[in-house]
Amino acid sequence: MSREQRQLVLRKGRLELESCRLPRRPAGYARIRVLLAGICNTDLELQRGYYGFEGVPGHEFVGEVVECDDRRLLGARVVGEINLACGRCEWCLRKLGRHCPVRKVLGIVGHPGAMSEYLTLPERNLHRVPDSVSDEQAVFVEPLAAAAEILDQVRLPKEGSVAVLGDGKLGILVAKWLLHRGASVRHYGRHRSKLALTAADGAEVTVSARRPRAAHDLVIEATGSPQGLADAVRLCRPRGTVVMKSTVHGSVALDTAPVIVDEITLVGSRCGRMEVALRALRRHDFGLEQMISAVLPLERAGEAFELAQRRGVRKVLLRPVR
Amino acid sequence: MSREQRQLVLRKGRLELESCRLPRRPAGYARIRVLLAGICNTDLELQRGYYGFEGVPGHEFVGEVVECDDRRLLGARVVGEINLACGRCEWCLRKLGRHCPVRKVLGIVGHPGAMSEYLTLPERNLHRVPDSVSDEQAVFVEPLAAAAEILDQVRLPKEGSVAVLGDGKLGILVAKWLLHRGASVRHYGRHRSKLALTAADGAEVTVSARRPRAAHDLVIEATGSPQGLADAVRLCRPRGTVVMKSTVHGSVALDTAPVIVDEITLVGSRCGRMEVALRALRRHDFGLEQMISAVLPLERAGEAFELAQRRGVRKVLLRPVR
Repeated sequence: MSREQRQLVLRKGRLELESCRLPRRPAGYARIRVLLAGICNTDLELQRGYYGFEGVPGHEFVGEVVECDDRRLLGARVVGEINLACGRCEWCLRKLGRHCPVRKVLGIVGHPGAMSEYLTLPERNLHRVPDSVSDEQAVFVEPLAAAAEILDQVRLPKEGSVAVLGDGKLGILVAKWLLHRGASVRHYGRHRSKLALTAADGAEVTVSARRPRAAHDLVIEATGSPQGLADAVRLCRPRGTVVMKSTVHGSVALDTAPVIVDEITLVGSRCGRMEVALRALRRHDFGLEQMISAVLPLERAGEAFELAQRRGVRKVLLRPVR
Repeated sequence: MSREQRQLVLRKGRLELESCRLPRRPAGYARIRVLLAGICNTDLELQRGYYGFEGVPGHEFVGEVVECDDRRLLGARVVGEINLACGRCEWCLRKLGRHCPVRKVLGIVGHPGAMSEYLTLPERNLHRVPDSVSDEQAVFVEPLAAAAEILDQVRLPKEGSVAVLGDGKLGILVAKWLLHRGASVRHYGRHRSKLALTAADGAEVTVSARRPRAAHDLVIEATGSPQGLADAVRLCRPRGTVVMKSTVHGSVALDTAPVIVDEITLVGSRCGRMEVALRALRRHDFGLEQMISAVLPLERAGEAFELAQRRGVRKVLLRPVR
């Protein structure tokens, strides 16, 4: 194994491919050869200045352990929790390390990400990928866990359908997850071709930009747009719940009066439990391969980022291995 | 009883005292002589254009039934639910008439309010005021019920104190209600004199505009200011809850990223159950009289509205009776 690696570095909104020495592997950490890394909307937001990020982006990955302390992990195919928690604070002790106040976050806060030939993560962050789950499926574990998180936070309504707003990558995964968990789903989006992916799983889909008012007790906002939240509130019935999934850069303008008058609950929702997503992937075919628009090598990352922002494009993956 | 009355009319932001014939009393409605009417922040917002309101404002009142169908009500001292619900829709059947989609709202939407010598309300909206509760206490039943609503929606955290943000009228009532219900309360405000009212009930108070970060699992936003929500989110711990009580005119700018990343829940909260507030008032002295800054006759309403907006002023009441 070479002691050099190529990595993608984001600096002032510019992506550059660099060669560098492999970083030190701290005790308790594994070094992982990245097989596939996904480009997420958060990565596109990082490029636009969200979090003032500089460094190696990428937090969706599947890889192979090439160095570690725990010998049983060597050679294992893994995915990994993106939050590097302290392991000692009250949040960590409550198994909510993803809210640890001093956490680093893979490819987002203070820890180099997956758009690199190798990455390091604490061994306790890793989950083995079962043989029956392909690389192309496993790279979706992180966003699928984020979709699964919703039902760790809120209950499905007893009656009526759940609205999923947005047919981007996360919106599709959210709709697929809710369908898998038995919900009746109404998926609102703008691209007939993307909505076809969830219609095939049983969602009722609406392509129009016109939305009914107060039609659902549970609305998942996954548009990735600053206007999405107001749309979601309009779609929500009195005393209903809107789950907020879209992290967008900057402030969102919200008329809070309808939230208060209709006593709507807004629930911020982020990362979820990977073991839940992995378990489901082993048993259920989510049709994730159909969500992949392109797989490009690391040296074509600029092109890959542009492609990922283009209308109608689904998931774009990077393959760092030469 | 004269068939004429004086009433306050708000038209394009101007308050005018007018004389008019008593309106018709529909079947099932009572006519109520208003003893006291409170000026609420919502009334001040109506004056600024909130809801494009024109008509007789006022939704906080105590009065005496002077005409009715149900003879047992005649002469009773009453307060009244402000939502005039249809009584037949799914919300009404669930005893949530305050979310009835075709409701009118006393002094706010489509029904003349309490800043008048007389008002009408459906008899089913009325609650008798026990003799032990004074007019000056009873006029607070509506906002006290709005404070009580919070604990119909969320639970008190097991540990730590609840933060109440804002020392206006609603903030004080919220803090008083939570203290009455056994919560440990940290009350953040700007006026030492107002915070003294809740400190006397056992609240810990903070006068400074500086707020700690992520200090409370439950934060009640009752500042009446568009900046209040962002402050409340900053005060809230990961996975905590912010209850939104301030209806403000227009849009609020909110950075949604911390809500999502910290998985904070925002709960819109409006009117509450009056019977709960009345029951508590009969048993517990909330020190409400100390919250009254002035009681003015209806013809001095302009002055009363100005006074109600002045820094340091507490509740201003109108007494329509000559």
